[in-house]
Amino acid sequence: MPHPNDPALRSFIPVDSESDFPIQNLPYGVFSAHGLAPRIGVAIGDYVLDLWELEQDGRLQVEPGTFSAPALNGFMSQGPQVWARTRARLSELLRHDHGELRDSEELRKRAVVPMREAKLHMPFHVAGFTDFYSSKEHATNVGAMFRGKDNALQPNWLHMPIGYNGRASTVVVSGTRVRRPRGQLKPPGAENPSFGPSKRLDFELEMGAVIGQASPIGGMLTEAQAQAMIFGFVLVNDWSARDIQQWEYVPLGPFQGKAFATSISPWVVTSAALEPFRCEGPAQTPPPLSYLQQAAPNNYDIELEVGLRAASMNKPARICRSNFKYMYWSSVQQLMHHASSGCAMNVGDLLGSGTISGPEKGQRGSLLEISWNGTEPLALADGVARTFLEDGDSLTMRGWCQGDGYRVGFGEVEGTILPAES
Amino acid sequence: MPHPNDPALRSFIPVDSESDFPIQNLPYGVFSAHGLAPRIGVAIGDYVLDLWELEQDGRLQVEPGTFSAPALNGFMSQGPQVWARTRARLSELLRHDHGELRDSEELRKRAVVPMREAKLHMPFHVAGFTDFYSSKEHATNVGAMFRGKDNALQPNWLHMPIGYNGRASTVVVSGTRVRRPRGQLKPPGAENPSFGPSKRLDFELEMGAVIGQASPIGGMLTEAQAQAMIFGFVLVNDWSARDIQQWEYVPLGPFQGKAFATSISPWVVTSAALEPFRCEGPAQTPPPLSYLQQAAPNNYDIELEVGLRAASMNKPARICRSNFKYMYWSSVQQLMHHASSGCAMNVGDLLGSGTISGPEKGQRGSLLEISWNGTEPLALADGVARTFLEDGDSLTMRGWCQGDGYRVGFGEVEGTILPAES
Repeated sequence: MPHPNDPALRSFIPVDSESDFPIQNLPYGVFSAHGLAPRIGVAIGDYVLDLWELEQDGRLQVEPGTFSAPALNGFMSQGPQVWARTRARLSELLRHDHGELRDSEELRKRAVVPMREAKLHMPFHVAGFTDFYSSKEHATNVGAMFRGKDNALQPNWLHMPIGYNGRASTVVVSGTRVRRPRGQLKPPGAENPSFGPSKRLDFELEMGAVIGQASPIGGMLTEAQAQAMIFGFVLVNDWSARDIQQWEYVPLGPFQGKAFATSISPWVVTSAALEPFRCEGPAQTPPPLSYLQQAAPNNYDIELEVGLRAASMNKPARICRSNFKYMYWSSVQQLMHHASSGCAMNVGDLLGSGTISGPEKGQRGSLLEISWNGTEPLALADGVARTFLEDGDSLTMRGWCQGDGYRVGFGEVEGTILPAES
Repeated sequence: MPHPNDPALRSFIPVDSESDFPIQNLPYGVFSAHGLAPRIGVAIGDYVLDLWELEQDGRLQVEPGTFSAPALNGFMSQGPQVWARTRARLSELLRHDHGELRDSEELRKRAVVPMREAKLHMPFHVAGFTDFYSSKEHATNVGAMFRGKDNALQPNWLHMPIGYNGRASTVVVSGTRVRRPRGQLKPPGAENPSFGPSKRLDFELEMGAVIGQASPIGGMLTEAQAQAMIFGFVLVNDWSARDIQQWEYVPLGPFQGKAFATSISPWVVTSAALEPFRCEGPAQTPPPLSYLQQAAPNNYDIELEVGLRAASMNKPARICRSNFKYMYWSSVQQLMHHASSGCAMNVGDLLGSGTISGPEKGQRGSLLEISWNGTEPLALADGVARTFLEDGDSLTMRGWCQGDGYRVGFGEVEGTILPAES
C-alpha cells in the first residue's frame, strides 16, 4: 500500500493544488451538518469526510463510538498505533484507485459532506493550555522595547523554554467573535489605575501542539516519548491586552491580559502529515542541558501569514509573513521541559509555541512588534492605519507546508473584535 | 424544620465535640469502600454517608445518577437550589429526632460506612486551577526578603488580587505522596544552571474556593453572582520548589516550580456550612475599584494549623497557626477579578487563596517565611531542624471553625515527601 504521505497520491474527490486539504493531509476536526449532532470528520478538498458514518458502516477499526464524540480526545487517547492505522485506512478509502467508497454512491452520500454545509466546532476539549515564549526574535523584540537592546533577553531565556499556564476555559474555535476585554489599566503617567476597555488589544501569531497521550505525575519524558505524544498542531491566535498585562504581570506573569480568549483553527493537522516538512531549528548556543537535548530535527517548515481587515476594508491586508521553523525551542523541547518537574500531561493539553516572529521586519508576529509598542502605525489601506486592534477588525492567520505540487495546510483561524461591554 | 446550621442540632450518629464533622457541617467528598466503585458521600462524625445508596433508595431529589459519579462536578452543576435542598434533606435524615434513616437498620447498613473502612479520592475534577497571592503579610514577607522592607509590596498589589494560572493536572488528594521535583537550578554564585533535585522544597498553607457554577465568556460578575458560584472550600497545600521557581519565573511567573503537585483535603466544606463563620476582612486602603467592591463580610474565621513530622519523629511539631480571616482579598473578590476580563469560569475551577500568613511570627504559612529564606533554621525536635523540606517529611494542615460546643472542620491535607527519581 502506498504511504499516506506519498506526494503522488490522488483522491477521487477533486482537490485543487492550492487546497490546504489534499489526501496527504487528512486533518481531524469536529463538525455538524444537516441538523445532526457534532461528530468527528476529516477535511478533504472542499469536503468533510464523516468518520462516524464510516465507523457505523464498519469501515474503521476503533473503539465503538469513537467518532460520534464531539471532541477528538477519545480518539487521541487510543494512541499512536490507532492514529497510524486510521490515517492509512482513510488514505486508502479516499484514493482515486480504491473503489470501496468511490463506487458506493449510497455511502458517499452519507459520508462526504460539502464543507460549506458544515459548521466547524472546537476540535478537542482543552485539558490544559500552556503558552510558551520560544521565538528568540519575538523575545528579543519585546525585551528591546521594554529593557533596551543590551538587556533584551532575560538570563534564563537561552537555557529553557520559558512558559506559563494559560486559561483553558476561553480557548475558542475560529470564527468566534472576540469581545474587547476590560481590565485594570495604569498607563504611564497615571497616578492610579482605572477599570475600562483595553486600549492596546493585540494578536499573537502562534502554533499549538495538541497532546494526544498522557504522561504520569512524577515522570520525565525522553525526546522519543515527547515526540510520540504530540498528536498534531493547530494555528493559535493568543489574543493579548497589552495594557492589562503590563500592569498586572509582576511578579506572577500574565493573567487577565490573556484570559479573555485564545482562538484556534478547527482542523488538527497530524504530526504524521507534517513528517515530510520536518527541519532543523536554529542552532542552540549555549547547548541545552541534557534533559532538553534533541537528536532529531524537531522544527517544521510551515509558512505563516496574518491578514488584518478593518470593517471599512473589502479584503484583508497582509501584515505578517513568518514561518514556524524560526522557533528557537521546538514543541518537543517544550514538552520535555513541561514534564521535567514531574508535571503530568493530559490528553487534550494545548502547548502554544509563543509568538512566531522571524528575523525580518515583515515577519513580526504581533502588533506590539509591528507598531513597535504603538510608535510606528501600520498603514493597511487608504486612510486606515493601526497600532493596536480596533473594534470591527477581523484578524486571520493561515499556515501551510508547501510540497511539490500540493500543500499540507491548516486552513485559517479568524476572529473579529466586538466592542467592550458597556 | 430547623435550619441546618442550628448549633442545637444533633445527629443520631454519635459525634464528638472535637470532631470536624458534626451535623452542622455535612461536607461532600468521594469515597470507595467494600470493593464498590467510588461515589459521593458526606462526612458525619467518624462515618461516611453514602449518597448513592440514599439516591437509589429514592431519598434525595437530584438528577438520576448524580451521586454515583466519582466527582462532585455533576452535583455542583445542578446549582445552588439543589445544593440547599440537598443540605436541608441530609440534615433532616441525620437528625436525632428523625426516624427515616435512624430506624431502618437495613438502610443504615448500606448507607452508613465507617470512615476507617473508606478510601477517600479527589472530590472533584479540577477544571482549572488558579492560584492567588492575597495575604498582605505573606506578600510583604516575601517582598521584604527579596527586595527589602521599603519595596516589599509591588505597586499593583493593593489594587487587585494578583494571581496566576496553575497546573490542574497535578492537583492530588491528601495522602498522595509527593515526589521531590527536579528542575533547572541556578543558585547564587553559580555561573551556569544545572538540572537536579530541588534543594528548597516548601509548602504553602492555603485554602481553595471550589467553583460550582459556570459563567459565560465575555461576562463579568457582581458580588452576589460570585458568592453564589462558590460551592465550598478545601485546604490546599501549594507545594513549591523555591529554587526552580526563582530561576524560571521572570517574566512569565511560576511554572515548573509549582507544577509537580498541589494537595487538597478530601472533604469540600460548603459555603452554606461556613455561613455562621463569616467575618470582615482587613480594611482595604486604598479602597478597591468599584468592580472589586464588596458589601458583605466575605472572609471566614477559619483556624488553621500546620504540623511537620520528620521521619525520625513520633508525632508532628506544630510549625504554624494562622487564620483564613487574615486574607486581604476575599475569595469573592478573587473570583470577580478573575472574570473581569470576560474570562469564563467553569464548574470545578479551584481558586487557591495564596499563602495564608498572619501578622505574628508564628503565623507564617511557608518555610520560606518561617526560616526567612533559609537563614533561620526551625527546631522541630531534639536534633531535628529544618530550613526546607527533607525526604520523608510529612506535612499536615488542618482547619476548623470553632462554634459554641462544636466545630465545622476541614479534616486534614497530608503529604509525605519521596526522594527525587534518580
